[in-house]
Amino acid sequence: MTVYLVGAGPGEGDLLTVRAARLLGDADVVVRDRLIDVSVMEFVNPLATIVDVGKVPGDSSSQSSINELLVELAESHETVVRLKGGDPFVFGRGGEEILALRDVGVSCVVVPGLSSALAGPLAAGIPVTHRGISRGVTIVSARGARGEITDFRGLAHAELTIVILMGVEHRGVIAAQLIEGGLDPTTAVAVVEQAWTGQQRTTRGSLDELASFDVRPPAIIVVGGVARFDLRSLELFDVALL
Amino acid sequence: MTVYLVGAGPGEGDLLTVRAARLLGDADVVVRDRLIDVSVMEFVNPLATIVDVGKVPGDSSSQSSINELLVELAESHETVVRLKGGDPFVFGRGGEEILALRDVGVSCVVVPGLSSALAGPLAAGIPVTHRGISRGVTIVSARGARGEITDFRGLAHAELTIVILMGVEHRGVIAAQLIEGGLDPTTAVAVVEQAWTGQQRTTRGSLDELASFDVRPPAIIVVGGVARFDLRSLELFDVALL
Repeated sequence: MTVYLVGAGPGEGDLLTVRAARLLGDADVVVRDRLIDVSVMEFVNPLATIVDVGKVPGDSSSQSSINELLVELAESHETVVRLKGGDPFVFGRGGEEILALRDVGVSCVVVPGLSSALAGPLAAGIPVTHRGISRGVTIVSARGARGEITDFRGLAHAELTIVILMGVEHRGVIAAQLIEGGLDPTTAVAVVEQAWTGQQRTTRGSLDELASFDVRPPAIIVVGGVARFDLRSLELFDVALL
Repeated sequence: MTVYLVGAGPGEGDLLTVRAARLLGDADVVVRDRLIDVSVMEFVNPLATIVDVGKVPGDSSSQSSINELLVELAESHETVVRLKGGDPFVFGRGGEEILALRDVGVSCVVVPGLSSALAGPLAAGIPVTHRGISRGVTIVSARGARGEITDFRGLAHAELTIVILMGVEHRGVIAAQLIEGGLDPTTAVAVVEQAWTGQQRTTRGSLDELASFDVRPPAIIVVGGVARFDLRSLELFDVALL
């Protein structure tokens, strides 16, 4: 009895790791987050039991019921896969699930997945680092573990790309705080909605325009010079930057 | 004639994406970085030509010769895979290779990979985010595109994990600058050497001890409260943190 905490990646099934795909094929039971794409589920053992858990961000009571469910399933099944969107250790609360399992003596193995924080920008042709434009990337969620809004003033850094998850609702405040923190209002911004799905859509502009973007969750906000790039369609918003 | 810019992930072959594994199986020629693990190469079409390119960080002349090589190969082969460690868009200089190919009309498709910046900490049981400890992560290279050392003073942020690539040689300066920038000298640090290989080794301590760590590249430095965790072996350095 082992629980495999598996990252499902950003969406499309063939963006699973080979290891994750094999484990899904061997699973007796799969406990999946809502929003896991159907193309990911095609890799699951057809005889496996599928359990949906609909976690609401910031709701720790539902997290504790997921933890209890995993413990219960681990006692009665050989191979339990806990399938989480993206990567279990990047805003996946995977650490909490492992600690809950440890408390009752259930062993746990973690399999990484592509985080949508990096694969989302890539889907829109945006490299999060690029020579001369960005020397690194800060990945942050707009909401903390208790639902509180992140203070973005201290996150402004002209040489770093900022990738913001769960920020669409708060985009006005985010832009204002980043400008207050020192970013130029003309800093490039891209919002990638529904990355790696047929409904993917990218909206681009500058930081002082972000509040008025017509965008809806789920979406990723990318702030910084690289947000001008679309290396997928091989177009650039501002060739002069190169 | 298409060049597929493919992320090889952090090391072990089955941490490739399913899409990357399939492309390697179809490749006519594979242009790979040095340090690509042999287990990754097991997925490559046995009839494919393998070309090694040994890029030295900060050396832009070798990057331009890689770009020329890709253009030349794309003209004579159907499926060229450019295989890069980690993810092509996270310190992979993938953007530069795409732009070089675009200039001569060669089409390019990017396939993401697991970045060692996130998968490396995971290999040591470190979640880069964890409720109540870290609300995000900054990923940065210790050396810039021209070989210059990054200024770490502006990167200190008590609520963010910092993951530093190529920083082992400069660990003394990095620690001093992060403390000068405001981090507590007792902030937890982990150095993960050779993640996802049989030689993986993790050294832990506090920021003011980092300079004296006995560590060698290639390694990843993780700074922040999460660096105390080892969720892989299910041990914690400081249970009080929870």
